Parts: sequence; C-alpha cells; structure tokens
Amino acid sequence: MPSNTPDSSQNIASEIEVDDANQRHQLRMQRKKKIIDEKIASATIKRGLIVMNCGNGKGKSSSGLGMVMRALGHEKKVGVVQFIKGAMSTGEEKFLRRFPDEVEFHAMGEGYTWNTQDRERDVLKANLAWLQAQRFLRDPSISLVLLDEVNIALKYHYLDVDMVIADLQNRPMMQHVILTGRGALPSLIEIADTVTEMREVKHAFKCGVGAQECIEW
Amino acid sequence: MPSNTPDSSQNIASEIEVDDANQRHQLRMQRKKKIIDEKIASATIKRGLIVMNCGNGKGKSSSGLGMVMRALGHEKKVGVVQFIKGAMSTGEEKFLRRFPDEVEFHAMGEGYTWNTQDRERDVLKANLAWLQAQRFLRDPSISLVLLDEVNIALKYHYLDVDMVIADLQNRPMMQHVILTGRGALPSLIEIADTVTEMREVKHAFKCGVGAQECIEW
Repeated sequence: MPSNTPDSSQNIASEIEVDDANQRHQLRMQRKKKIIDEKIASATIKRGLIVMNCGNGKGKSSSGLGMVMRALGHEKKVGVVQFIKGAMSTGEEKFLRRFPDEVEFHAMGEGYTWNTQDRERDVLKANLAWLQAQRFLRDPSISLVLLDEVNIALKYHYLDVDMVIADLQNRPMMQHVILTGRGALPSLIEIADTVTEMREVKHAFKCGVGAQECIEW
Repeated sequence: MPSNTPDSSQNIASEIEVDDANQRHQLRMQRKKKIIDEKIASATIKRGLIVMNCGNGKGKSSSGLGMVMRALGHEKKVGVVQFIKGAMSTGEEKFLRRFPDEVEFHAMGEGYTWNTQDRERDVLKANLAWLQAQRFLRDPSISLVLLDEVNIALKYHYLDVDMVIADLQNRPMMQHVILTGRGALPSLIEIADTVTEMREVKHAFKCGVGAQECIEW
C-alpha cells in the first residue's frame, strides 16, 4: 500500500507535527485571549485623555497627526495648533487645509528657537498660539486637540506652565488633547494619561540623509 | 526727575536685565544655529527610507498614518497594508477610503493572533497581505508604503523574513516604507534607516481607561 512507503509515513508524521504545532498555538492563544479579555473588561472608563509624545526619536508629531486622521474618520471635529512650525509649508498643513469644516489648523510658530534667535518674539508668538489653544480647550464641539511642539514652548518658559495645566484640566470631559515635543516638563508628564517616549534607536539624518518631505514634514 | 525715583531706577535695572537675558539668548541661539546648520549641510543624501516604529508604547501605527498624511499633502501616492487590523472598521480606514485615487488601502488581517487562534489561517492571511505589499514595493509611482503591524506577522514566522528583506531592498530607489509593530526582528532593525522605539512611560489602559476611538483606532 502506498501509505506504507517510507515517504508517505514521513509525510504523515510531519502532518501530525504540524497539527500538534497548530493545536499548541491554539491553546496558547486561548490562554492569552482570556488574560487580555479580562484586562479589557476591567478597562471600562471612557473619557478624554491627555496623550503626551516626548523623547528625542522620530514620531511625536506624526503620531499626533495619525490620531487627527482617526478622529476625522470618526467624523469628529479637530483643532490643531503648531507652536514651532509655521515658517515653512508642511505636508500636514497642505493636507488639513483641504478640510476647513472638519479641522481648524493654525501653524503659529516661526521656526525653532535657534532660527528665530529672538526670545521676546518667540514668547509673544507662543502666547498668541496658546490663546488659540485655549479657544479649542473651551469648545466641547472639538473632540481632539493637537498641540504640536508645545513642550518646546514650555521648556523655554515661553508659556506659563500653571496656566497651561489649568486650561488642560478644565477642558471638556470627553475632549482628547495630544501634546508633543522634546523636553517635556515633569509636571506635564504627571497630568498626562498616556505618555510615550519616542526613543531614537537609529536616525537616517546621522548617516548623512537630509530631512525629506513625507517623512519629516 | 522721575527717572531718579527709586521705582523708575528699579524699572530701568530690570529692563537692562531683560535686555541682557535676551542678548544671551540670542548669542546662545546663534551658536546653536551654526552647529545645526553644519549638520544639515552635511546631510545631503536624498533617498527612500525604511522607517521602523517598534516598542511597546503608543504611537507606532499612528505615526505611520501621520506620514501618510504628509505624503498626501505633497500629492504623492500612498499604499497601506494592515497585517493584523481588518476585523473591525477603524478611523484611518474610514478616512483613507475617501481618497481612492491617492491611497490604496488594504486591511487584510482578522485581528490579533489571540483572537483568531488559528495559526494556519493567520499564515495564509499574512502571505496574502504580503502579496499586496509586494505589488506596492514594485511600483515606483507609489512614494510611501505603510506596512502596519508587519512586525507581528514576522515575529510569529507567518512571513518568510528573507523574502520580506529582499522585497524591501529591491524596492524603487526613492520609495519610503514604514514598518510598525511590537517585537521587531533584529534583521529588520538592521536594514532600517530610522528606528524609533516607542517606549511606554504611562498608559491610560492600565488605569482602567478602555481603548477609545480617535486614540486607538
């Protein structure tokens, strides 16, 4: 019988092995699902979050923009204030300006502090940008607010940190706020709900690759 | 003379102090600008990058989506393959489907491995998703490819890592690819140009807050 040839018994053996591997996988995944389902069942609170993206690695602002995209997908209204960017046109600005009814977009900076070299003007611009942020933080019709690079304005003391914390804490209950930028102040990390440090493992810039559209702006 | 009253001389003194602080700031920023300008001047290479977003923290997929947004702002064509997501509708899917001429979007997963519990089916789905990724990676008209959660498919050996690396390395010269997901393989980190570990500092989920639209999907 063909099933008795060495070849086919080997095939059967390896099929049993595959079946075993699949069954082991299934059992492992059932156990994992049980643990995860329990965790999900106990996480029942729904409220607006403060999400903080800090650290020196790539992905802080872009992650904020990704959440803006998700909010737009759910037909929510979004407010964006960019505290440092504004001196040059960016991909996100060009794109988001296509949806004026869904996104209010303000790029109010004039570049990084080493480009402006004018502290008084930086302070003025940062505070004008915060006035805009305040308007969003008092408007319950806005579901998600992105305060891009606000950490830098706080780190250089361009903004009063107590004012910023008070405005964040007094915002509408279900509103999400995303704060980004290097050098996050401990007091902001303290009040944030979800904090991610974008840790640089490797960066193309250090291998001589310049900042490029799509990736950096 | 009013300028001789104690009050006004104090004002003048504090104005001089402010001027000093501003000048010091300006000098510091001029020095910083010089260093940064030199770095920028030496980073002259322009080419497509492999960007890897890994780690256990929040922001891996959302950062990829933010770069998708930037690319759309620059009127570039984008291809997205989601390897795990697909079982439920997400904000990004609803949003990106509004632009069929600009984004080709495929959510080809059926949930996390512990939800499907069927290894053979996971392997099949992952390889079907890779066929789609291959199509993007061979098409020079697509400027940016997002392979969302591909790291998970690689970690569980659903995909052949040598095939994945070969396809990534043979892609068009100027095409950017973003890889996301936990458990990135060292061989993928090795070939990536920019690698960020999203490190979890704090997560609302652990304080009983459930995953929420806009933020997590």
